[in-house]
Amino acid sequence: MQAEIITIGDEILIGQIVDTNSAFISKILNKNGVSVYQITSVQDEATHILQALEDANRRSQVVIITGGLGPTKDDVTKHTLCTYFGDTLQQDPMVLAHIEMLFKKYISTPISDMNRQQALVPTKATILKNDFGTAPGMWMEKAGTVFISLPGVPFEMKALMQHHVIPKIIEKFERPYIIHKTIMTYGLGESAIAERIEVWENALPQDIKLAYLPSLGRVRLRLSAKGRDKNDLQRRINNEVKKLYPLIGEIIYGEEGDESIEAQIAKLLIDKKQTLATAESFTGGKIAQQITALPGASKYFKGSMVAYATETKIKVLGIPVALIEKHSVVSEAVAIAMAERVRILLDTDFAIATTGNAGPSKGDADTPVGTVYIGVCTPSGSFAQQFVMGNHRERIVQKSVNKAFELLQKEILKF
Amino acid sequence: MQAEIITIGDEILIGQIVDTNSAFISKILNKNGVSVYQITSVQDEATHILQALEDANRRSQVVIITGGLGPTKDDVTKHTLCTYFGDTLQQDPMVLAHIEMLFKKYISTPISDMNRQQALVPTKATILKNDFGTAPGMWMEKAGTVFISLPGVPFEMKALMQHHVIPKIIEKFERPYIIHKTIMTYGLGESAIAERIEVWENALPQDIKLAYLPSLGRVRLRLSAKGRDKNDLQRRINNEVKKLYPLIGEIIYGEEGDESIEAQIAKLLIDKKQTLATAESFTGGKIAQQITALPGASKYFKGSMVAYATETKIKVLGIPVALIEKHSVVSEAVAIAMAERVRILLDTDFAIATTGNAGPSKGDADTPVGTVYIGVCTPSGSFAQQFVMGNHRERIVQKSVNKAFELLQKEILKF
Repeated sequence: MQAEIITIGDEILIGQIVDTNSAFISKILNKNGVSVYQITSVQDEATHILQALEDANRRSQVVIITGGLGPTKDDVTKHTLCTYFGDTLQQDPMVLAHIEMLFKKYISTPISDMNRQQALVPTKATILKNDFGTAPGMWMEKAGTVFISLPGVPFEMKALMQHHVIPKIIEKFERPYIIHKTIMTYGLGESAIAERIEVWENALPQDIKLAYLPSLGRVRLRLSAKGRDKNDLQRRINNEVKKLYPLIGEIIYGEEGDESIEAQIAKLLIDKKQTLATAESFTGGKIAQQITALPGASKYFKGSMVAYATETKIKVLGIPVALIEKHSVVSEAVAIAMAERVRILLDTDFAIATTGNAGPSKGDADTPVGTVYIGVCTPSGSFAQQFVMGNHRERIVQKSVNKAFELLQKEILKF
Repeated sequence: MQAEIITIGDEILIGQIVDTNSAFISKILNKNGVSVYQITSVQDEATHILQALEDANRRSQVVIITGGLGPTKDDVTKHTLCTYFGDTLQQDPMVLAHIEMLFKKYISTPISDMNRQQALVPTKATILKNDFGTAPGMWMEKAGTVFISLPGVPFEMKALMQHHVIPKIIEKFERPYIIHKTIMTYGLGESAIAERIEVWENALPQDIKLAYLPSLGRVRLRLSAKGRDKNDLQRRINNEVKKLYPLIGEIIYGEEGDESIEAQIAKLLIDKKQTLATAESFTGGKIAQQITALPGASKYFKGSMVAYATETKIKVLGIPVALIEKHSVVSEAVAIAMAERVRILLDTDFAIATTGNAGPSKGDADTPVGTVYIGVCTPSGSFAQQFVMGNHRERIVQKSVNKAFELLQKEILKF
């Protein structure tokens, strides 16, 4: 059983926004046994949308359409669906009541004709209630294919997928299980890994597929299988994963692609009832931001000193001027001192610190762009490591954040 | 003249990664007068890729393909291109020399057969040199349509687009100018704005298009036009924008969608030679991270105290315990104190501070989830404002970060 996604909106095709909706929809469909065959982004234009609907109808049983359901004039999706289904629009009293309620509750201005028009829906559509906005989701069927139209605003779309679309798909279609397992590695390139595991890879059962996903110093290996017996799939995939450890065990740092390294660290720290602080220079708060993006971070994360300027390192973090003068602000000694100081200041068990130069121009130190130091301080001591991260600002920061989490995780596991 | 993008990779269709490549490619093509008609994401599978190539060929003169050029076995793009062009692979000595050089320079392990195979390219392809990786870009032509295949690793793809693909497209095709102008507004919903500007919108010239882009408390209005005379387009769009100010001037906070509010703040602070610090509670470093994502941030940004725990607010930021006990940690008084304290500690001209509850559960204060305070401290005083940001963790944080930048920008403009 197969689905397609059609995202509507010129803003995608001129590169003004990144289409994150498709990734969310693909993931949740996959989790529920529905493979996504294709994602198509089309213009806000009736002929183009109609063509995409017809093409998708030929190939797939479920077509999910997002975008083009706003209250303003650039909205064409609803009218195009009417053309496609030979249908007309009529006012839905439930949708209208919901819009009126939202206006009364959240919006001070009086309800406008334009908003009332959002209650106009195709007569053949089953309405999916949008708890967070005025544009309802719509479920329509044609020649055995289901078409689901959702608003493009991500959090409205997400709630509709989770609470309405997925339950209805589960009810309507028999679906296989789709199992993915992702093995996360670092320290070895894609082709070097491929050579080490070649014999294993060639011996994989026909229905278990392997993919290499390289990114910023890491390679993720994804195993996928599809079938009726979930336990059997799980068992067979786990069996293959076990065989990987003797081959590349030393570069594996985790399983399950869904769980980020910061989520694994969170679990470890909560389990051990231990706490963390960070002192960030060139990573500029990104480590703290990734940690606090997880709900419950307050259980183990006390804070971060983003000491971007050298002056801030001295005045707030208390790094001795002499140390900076002797070693330079981008140095092993300063990374260690930053980790140690922030651990004491914020009174935590663990601390990580970063100092380096992300470019494009040289900063307060003469160190070349891309040279960074990551310091770690634990209840039993501290150290720092140097890394050379290339010359691309964004990548230097992201690779360093990843590396900091890796170093930290290894240390926490020792306690 | 029209282009299409085909992104290849199961990882996109299972939602494991978000396709950011397409947004980058669309944007740079648009800037150079090439409209993108459609973006299609397909599986790592020859029949599917072939179908997408044929469909795109019917519609567009330029087809850009990314993904599926890695060294490992899940790579199918190159072989499919050979099938499509009736071509065979042959070793390219220049590509091989480049791969050997990269291995010698950056990788300690010896070069493998798998990497050598990356030098195999279709005989009809013009090679586009990939300075940052082993998989070359390829430029092929068929029946008047150009097919360009690029590796999927974003920074390799970006460099190839900028330095090779765009110059070749400019050389080969006559292109019109495409002009976009985006007006950023906040404080009014999509439909309320639409009503206020209805007469203006209906009077827009046929070839100037308007789109509404709502997101997290803001609505962006995008005007687009396409034509041969750049100055004329620019003049006519600016003329329409001018007419908007009497209608909705008070909710416009900037023009040019490409320039983020933090980039505008950066320019202001650099111009005025003034500095900034932040004290962040529930935003967890995201304000600092967005500021430091811009090159040159060290010119005006001294750092941030990410005081996530109440204890950290007291111990490091020096917020009086009595103040917290009297007003609660999520309060106007604490937001003001945080902004004032961090401004003094880091010795800056401006400071912003956040305290609030992003949920999902209640934190150190009894304040409901979604209630936040943003404090601003300037050379002439300080204040804080309360906002109620809904109940979705990620949105609460992002909306608050946006709001903090808006408040700050208004204050900086007073000096």
